[in-house]
Amino acid sequence: MNEHLSPLEWSNGVLRLLDQRRLPTEEIWHEYRSFAEVAGAIKDMVVRGAPAIGCTAAYGVALGAREGALFDEVCAALAATRPTAVNLFWAIERMKRVQPRTAEALEREAIQIQEEDIAACRAIGRQGASLLPPGVVLTHCNAGALATGGYGTALGVIRSAIAAGTRLEVFADETRPFLQGARLTAWELQKSNIPVTLITDNMAGHFMSRGAIQSVVVGADRIAANGDTANKIGTFSVAVLAREHHIPFYVAAPRSTIDRALPDGSCIPIEERAAEEVTHLDGRRIAPEVAVCNPAFDVTPARFITALITEAGVCRAPFGESIARLF
Amino acid sequence: MNEHLSPLEWSNGVLRLLDQRRLPTEEIWHEYRSFAEVAGAIKDMVVRGAPAIGCTAAYGVALGAREGALFDEVCAALAATRPTAVNLFWAIERMKRVQPRTAEALEREAIQIQEEDIAACRAIGRQGASLLPPGVVLTHCNAGALATGGYGTALGVIRSAIAAGTRLEVFADETRPFLQGARLTAWELQKSNIPVTLITDNMAGHFMSRGAIQSVVVGADRIAANGDTANKIGTFSVAVLAREHHIPFYVAAPRSTIDRALPDGSCIPIEERAAEEVTHLDGRRIAPEVAVCNPAFDVTPARFITALITEAGVCRAPFGESIARLF
Repeated sequence: MNEHLSPLEWSNGVLRLLDQRRLPTEEIWHEYRSFAEVAGAIKDMVVRGAPAIGCTAAYGVALGAREGALFDEVCAALAATRPTAVNLFWAIERMKRVQPRTAEALEREAIQIQEEDIAACRAIGRQGASLLPPGVVLTHCNAGALATGGYGTALGVIRSAIAAGTRLEVFADETRPFLQGARLTAWELQKSNIPVTLITDNMAGHFMSRGAIQSVVVGADRIAANGDTANKIGTFSVAVLAREHHIPFYVAAPRSTIDRALPDGSCIPIEERAAEEVTHLDGRRIAPEVAVCNPAFDVTPARFITALITEAGVCRAPFGESIARLF
Repeated sequence: MNEHLSPLEWSNGVLRLLDQRRLPTEEIWHEYRSFAEVAGAIKDMVVRGAPAIGCTAAYGVALGAREGALFDEVCAALAATRPTAVNLFWAIERMKRVQPRTAEALEREAIQIQEEDIAACRAIGRQGASLLPPGVVLTHCNAGALATGGYGTALGVIRSAIAAGTRLEVFADETRPFLQGARLTAWELQKSNIPVTLITDNMAGHFMSRGAIQSVVVGADRIAANGDTANKIGTFSVAVLAREHHIPFYVAAPRSTIDRALPDGSCIPIEERAAEEVTHLDGRRIAPEVAVCNPAFDVTPARFITALITEAGVCRAPFGESIARLF
């Protein structure tokens, strides 16, 4: 991978994406030359993670312009890929504001979005580094370099804390059904020489009860104006368990993840994904043919969140006021 | 399967076990004629579930007597298979009390243990049937017919409630890493025509927060004198989430699961299993080579338990006194 551990690279009108579905066993990059291919890659989770989806969609718009496709059609196709992460819509809106809408100007804006995202991640890391106590920090899903333009949000905070001298080890929830923790976080941290221990999602409470976890830091897919946070399914359970054990629970995300138009988390659309993600693994059946629910995200009410770490500052309760001051 | 949906059958000096590792895709029965093979089957989880392990070990002792093996060696080998479920040690102790220790007498006692276990499950069902409110009941792991001599403990309560006319649907946690919920509970309930929806472990909190779950019932591997309960890893997290959402959390188990020698749950030995159960699925790697923790059980403190349902009555707080009255 590149210096920022970025999962997406743009060069000479071609977008390259690291296929995150194939990690950790294979490190395969695909090339994209059309907006429709990019939309498919977002939908199929070649790339995932709210900030990374935003950056990818911006490049998708730039590719659409190169192809000479209708601008509104390009934006609509990319917006229809995944419903929960607001960074997707944020990035598309930002591309819509580019004037004139030349291929060159749109390309410059997409590059700018990614560079700002990496800078935001590094700033999130600086803002949050001092919050993590020494010991074990638990994370859920992958809010790392792989989920962003590069460097990571939750893992960015961990990287920065370690760089600042905090002795940290990471416990990574495997994060069923897509296994982002097992496949992506474990892989990314190992690449970065950060000590990581993999656990199944249902073990987090056990280790908290044994005093083995000192803090939790996760990313976010959409944050309402009152601080309620949609993130990967399972995040809410971790937050409840953290509060039960008096363990600080941090959310790390760029301001582009905050959807100030939504008063609270009940308004956040939750994507329901295919049953096969639960009943099959690598194409092989692990459950009989029964009914399945597969919501990809859940909402953690703000009252369970110790602090929200953004590139512009750290928000605490009352979150409504604290978040408003960021803008 | 047989009328009791039992995962173990004894006939003419041969023990047959349904290979629960191969479910739900294959329904394969193995035959066992030696205590050493039976010990291997318990260790390798051909059979699992605390009461079923107890019944299986009793037949293992009977097979050892048929082989003419040293009685103490037979008992030691069977006791060394798995550390957490107390029913294993309870059944072996009961076999030790048989006098004279003839093959015939030991065989009769083993059959008696299984018949009593099935009867206990049916009685647990009757005791608990009225406790479950209509709607959705969540269960974790498999505490069904497959985990017992037959009929099931937690699923026995569900079977009895449905037989008594309660409109119930089951949400089954898939129960990583061994997937007892996905592979066994979903399969067993489907066979019994009980509506079941499969979810990943980390979804339970989400559905509770949406009001989609009305009660929880789980089994147990060992219960201390004060009611603290060791059960499949992840049970504790479900209990914390249930209390957070004011949802009743029931434990269903025969008295043979209660270890009155242990004052509280901190004394219960927790089995640590191989890392490969987490990093591999069906022999295929799903995570990089990193450190892994794999405790097979956790302990739910009694204060999270609404009631303990046994064949001899329903215990409530203060559990110490309530449990003592069972004996």
